[in-house]
Amino acid sequence: MAVDYEIFDCGDVKLQRGATLRDCKLAYKTFGKLNAKKDNVIVYPTWYSGQHYDNEWLVGKGMALDPDKYFIIIPNMFGNGLSSSPSNMPEPYNASRFPQVTPYDNVRQQHRLVTEKFGIKKIALVTGWSMGALQTFHWGALYPDMMKAIAPFCGSAKCSRHNFVFLEGVKAALTADAAWNNGWYTDKPAKGLRAMARVYAGWGFSQDFYRAELDLKTLGYSSLEDFLVAFWEGFFLPKDANNLLTMLWTWQNGDIGDNEVFKGDFKKALGAIKAKAYVMPGQTDLYFPVADSKIEVANMPNAELVPMPSIWGHFAGGPGVNPEDVKFLDNKLKELLAD
Amino acid sequence: MAVDYEIFDCGDVKLQRGATLRDCKLAYKTFGKLNAKKDNVIVYPTWYSGQHYDNEWLVGKGMALDPDKYFIIIPNMFGNGLSSSPSNMPEPYNASRFPQVTPYDNVRQQHRLVTEKFGIKKIALVTGWSMGALQTFHWGALYPDMMKAIAPFCGSAKCSRHNFVFLEGVKAALTADAAWNNGWYTDKPAKGLRAMARVYAGWGFSQDFYRAELDLKTLGYSSLEDFLVAFWEGFFLPKDANNLLTMLWTWQNGDIGDNEVFKGDFKKALGAIKAKAYVMPGQTDLYFPVADSKIEVANMPNAELVPMPSIWGHFAGGPGVNPEDVKFLDNKLKELLAD
Repeated sequence: MAVDYEIFDCGDVKLQRGATLRDCKLAYKTFGKLNAKKDNVIVYPTWYSGQHYDNEWLVGKGMALDPDKYFIIIPNMFGNGLSSSPSNMPEPYNASRFPQVTPYDNVRQQHRLVTEKFGIKKIALVTGWSMGALQTFHWGALYPDMMKAIAPFCGSAKCSRHNFVFLEGVKAALTADAAWNNGWYTDKPAKGLRAMARVYAGWGFSQDFYRAELDLKTLGYSSLEDFLVAFWEGFFLPKDANNLLTMLWTWQNGDIGDNEVFKGDFKKALGAIKAKAYVMPGQTDLYFPVADSKIEVANMPNAELVPMPSIWGHFAGGPGVNPEDVKFLDNKLKELLAD
Repeated sequence: MAVDYEIFDCGDVKLQRGATLRDCKLAYKTFGKLNAKKDNVIVYPTWYSGQHYDNEWLVGKGMALDPDKYFIIIPNMFGNGLSSSPSNMPEPYNASRFPQVTPYDNVRQQHRLVTEKFGIKKIALVTGWSMGALQTFHWGALYPDMMKAIAPFCGSAKCSRHNFVFLEGVKAALTADAAWNNGWYTDKPAKGLRAMARVYAGWGFSQDFYRAELDLKTLGYSSLEDFLVAFWEGFFLPKDANNLLTMLWTWQNGDIGDNEVFKGDFKKALGAIKAKAYVMPGQTDLYFPVADSKIEVANMPNAELVPMPSIWGHFAGGPGVNPEDVKFLDNKLKELLAD
């Protein structure tokens, strides 16, 4: 089958935590054309378990991310099954031996793609949902002179302690399945993936979402159990367990300040972001609460807090499930790009 | 070892969902003395996985629940290991065959204890935390002429759809462990119990609690991981998995209107509560949000919404972990009893 994306060969990448990802691959997809000045660029990293396909709902003619105007690059996060991942890495760093990769590691290689492959020096916007927001914050702090604007939505610059605990629950559910076998499974640990999906289900959407029965009335599932099986279990079952655990580690260890540049200084890292920023938490997001975004905005020189007025919880930000949220987000991105 | 509680023999109890609990036992503990008029009575049901010991933090000289003034009855919920439970029921209804028990089933037998054993006709207060609140609501609706006041705190009259989903995650984590063996374990499913604990950890306390590091600064754990192991895993590991699943079913199927009296009419059941009620959600409770309590209060003739101003999440209501919350609650109970 022909693939619809490209590969950037990163070569041997020495990771932040010590391992070397040899012959490292960064999969990406682009939309639109790079203009002569090479300044019509939007970078739009992927989210937990998502691939570039899952980002495309925010790209389209007439939208902020319009391929007729912009050259949009979607880099796939390491571990997501397209870029180097447990599922596609040759021995000996395959499967459960795939190394620990930080958001910093991801963004450094994305920066190489953008500069080495395309010769880009100016970026109009970096934006992303969830872990895509985490990478967006990193872009802003690590390459502050490159971009005009950033718009991290439903995400944070650092994994909060509560968010870390939520992910511990997800991980514990997946790995409680003996079939997981410390990552050396032959058949997939289906029971663990289903358990993980059920744990996730309570976090992904808000109390208000479930009270309003939007799973039935808007998304069209036939019962709550149907939503849990068809949407949630159906979402995680096709994914590779080691990939999921790799990205989960990346998420839990996400911290904009935890690198050689900022040496653990979270506020200094946020303060380094020069770009105009719309920090857009979901009003009812259970793992990226508005309060965390407020702290970030207070430490950024050119940022505005723009909560998304939605009862869709974390899914206010994606992947395009609620047209009203998409419209709100798209309008805000248009505002930012028009500046 | 001598036990510090009594047993009420319920005999053969036909349950709402069809099974008969033969030779059914209701374990309870009382504090204080029943006065001559038999009207100094407080009923205080237990919470998910808790036993009467775990309710005692709210009982004491000088407190609202003062044994010098009141005769306080703490009935243990079925499935909690003291009243009839999977872990103590003889064959054939033992272990995984223990039948489905509703909150209605629980409260009907508690009512028999109160009336048949003690000859009580008037109750000053029914109160309880979490599933104890669920039972409190049932008491109010089923025996509206018996009591002067009720104070359900950090709980609801019906398991909300979101709450149901949260519990699905807890259940899925526990039962993902092959050692659980559909309830026919010989050694306890420790991996599943630990996984369940980690899932619960994100729900029990709020985002604000974790951000403020109260697990370290107030509760004195040495690290977040120490809190997850020592507090959370330590909490669930000693408990019987079938007992936990029985009570989880009771919780998920809790609905004040789902019985022969109200025939599925939730609002009618709430409307039947004559007692003066303080409905006390925790301001940051993630599974019993204030919005659900508001709906309940709006349908109750004599209720007041009294949110607990606390960042302790669900644990604002118990079990006595935060002295400020205990004080707030105790004062409100004193107000109610003074009326």
